[in-house]
Amino acid sequence: MAKKDSEAALEKLETLGKNMIAEVMRGSSPEFETAVRSRGNINYDESFGYLRLGEKKETRTFVNVGQARKFMQTVAVASKCKKFLEEKSHTSIRGLFYQLKYSLGDDVEEELFTEQSESNPLIEDLEVALTLKREDLNLNTDRKGVVAGEMTVVDRFGGDETKIDCAKQGRSGWAIPSDVDNGMEFEKVDANYVLVVEKDALWQRLNEDKFWKKEGCILITPKGQASRGCRRLIKKLSQKKLPVYVFTDCDAWGWYIYWAIKTGSMNLAYLADDIATPSARFVGVTMQDIVDYDFLGKLTINAKEVDLKRAQEMMDYPWIARHKEWVNELKTVLKTKKKLEQDALQGPRLSFVGEYLREKIKAKKFLP
Amino acid sequence: MAKKDSEAALEKLETLGKNMIAEVMRGSSPEFETAVRSRGNINYDESFGYLRLGEKKETRTFVNVGQARKFMQTVAVASKCKKFLEEKSHTSIRGLFYQLKYSLGDDVEEELFTEQSESNPLIEDLEVALTLKREDLNLNTDRKGVVAGEMTVVDRFGGDETKIDCAKQGRSGWAIPSDVDNGMEFEKVDANYVLVVEKDALWQRLNEDKFWKKEGCILITPKGQASRGCRRLIKKLSQKKLPVYVFTDCDAWGWYIYWAIKTGSMNLAYLADDIATPSARFVGVTMQDIVDYDFLGKLTINAKEVDLKRAQEMMDYPWIARHKEWVNELKTVLKTKKKLEQDALQGPRLSFVGEYLREKIKAKKFLP
Repeated sequence: MAKKDSEAALEKLETLGKNMIAEVMRGSSPEFETAVRSRGNINYDESFGYLRLGEKKETRTFVNVGQARKFMQTVAVASKCKKFLEEKSHTSIRGLFYQLKYSLGDDVEEELFTEQSESNPLIEDLEVALTLKREDLNLNTDRKGVVAGEMTVVDRFGGDETKIDCAKQGRSGWAIPSDVDNGMEFEKVDANYVLVVEKDALWQRLNEDKFWKKEGCILITPKGQASRGCRRLIKKLSQKKLPVYVFTDCDAWGWYIYWAIKTGSMNLAYLADDIATPSARFVGVTMQDIVDYDFLGKLTINAKEVDLKRAQEMMDYPWIARHKEWVNELKTVLKTKKKLEQDALQGPRLSFVGEYLREKIKAKKFLP
Repeated sequence: MAKKDSEAALEKLETLGKNMIAEVMRGSSPEFETAVRSRGNINYDESFGYLRLGEKKETRTFVNVGQARKFMQTVAVASKCKKFLEEKSHTSIRGLFYQLKYSLGDDVEEELFTEQSESNPLIEDLEVALTLKREDLNLNTDRKGVVAGEMTVVDRFGGDETKIDCAKQGRSGWAIPSDVDNGMEFEKVDANYVLVVEKDALWQRLNEDKFWKKEGCILITPKGQASRGCRRLIKKLSQKKLPVYVFTDCDAWGWYIYWAIKTGSMNLAYLADDIATPSARFVGVTMQDIVDYDFLGKLTINAKEVDLKRAQEMMDYPWIARHKEWVNELKTVLKTKKKLEQDALQGPRLSFVGEYLREKIKAKKFLP
């Protein structure tokens, strides 16, 4: 990933600026080219196995009444990110917004930015144009999720080097940061597979039973929909040839957490090369489980209108609809109007969650 | 806290059960007494400095058509918790609900519980009746928040003992667990004060600048409203004679995060002795800061209707209204209809957040 770290980011930003200056010197209008990120330019790419941006480009030019303001804003965002990289300091996109809001000085009447909704898409423009992640521009993203397992993380941060042994984090686990690339190494990963568990409550259950130790897995919970940092970590682990199994609620929302990890999502299609893990497999919970484990029948609950709507939408996604197993699952939800939470697997005994996972993983009872 | 740990909890549950059996043997109806937790029995107690339950009690008796079902349910919850304690296994209240839902067996037609909303208040009943926390009953609560600082945590969990050095957690910090009492010791706490920072983004900013190292503080973010575990941790640190300073957005929502830490909240008044920290002080952000740091004026944003409504409500809380400084702050919000986020302190330079805190803490510029 040498090309994607913060040093490379600084070079890319400098090149961007120098090229613009050169254009001005030549007497032409500076331009900025980025890929179009709207739905029309997002496709499921079968050879990659995930949602990616297509070929459509967008060019922004300074000498254009409709584009001048946005052009200036883009340059301002790039300039701030360059400063953060030089200072070796990080902030959030909210912090960036306030620096932009502050920076015009008292002598200019007009604000460069009034709402964060103006600066956010410009950051995405930069990510795409420079083929890097905002994390490489020292912008922190919301972090969420924890990890346990035989894995040592070397965190070079603020001049210090810290080794974190994810097998020795007790009940807490290691909190997944925003950026798992820059200044971060995964030194020792000794595992048979990666298990991603939707809910923190179930992660805690499995952690208490030392599931990761007994089964030799890296146990991750994204705590719901996975953050960018969590998806990136899963991708990185999958690149170490570890199989990735995902365990969620049996409802469209839970299943979509799986699909977002596997094929990426519309919003982050521009980052799919970094965060989609097409090799991921789904271990459960499935509607078929209700047939296979008959006590589960009485632990189902009613699906809400929003669950059914989401299930219908998922049937219309071609990358899901191509798998007959998933179409069957979604149809069963729509027919029975039921759902089953992963928590329900604790019904007969608290340790049953682990028994269930062990059995299904051993028998390779996965959905694609 | 010897009386509040899991072993004591087991004894208390056994005594509860034995007393009920004795009542049955005597030919009388078993009873269960707990404190009333409705608003009418919640008072601000000036001598304690927080919201507490009053003296009103509620008795549930088995031989009463209106109470028999609820009585039976309470006993079922107590029985499950006893089992969890004996098995030394934890689960969430959702896990408990599914065990209750499962447990009646196939031969009984009627379900003991159909919705979790039935079992939740019964857990609170037990907490109050037995004067312990659900965490002592091996029930995990939602965990949230991270810590950095010169503090060593000894986590005895699942038969292992892990030492976690909160000064060596890199960019991640130590994730605050659900239970910071049972099997957990805070061995070495070497700090001048505790700083609680509302937003994780600001925690990350201060952590990167090594604020906790330079200033000798324990740096905590609850990530918004503080979880039970986080409030309990703050309370425990305050009991080690550490001053607690809270740093939030300048709006009613942020300020209420402070008040919930300090005086507790209505919902958790029954736990106030364990989680309220009346010695806490508010370091910022205040409306007065906008006067004292004049660049902040242009970084304010418009308060939403919901912010103003909440500010009005807070003025009506007698434990807030008794402080003229807070009444002034709230009135200024209502008059100017403005708010100021803690993120805005990054406007002039990313490191300004630390400068601001250092200055205000040194000058003891706190609100009560």
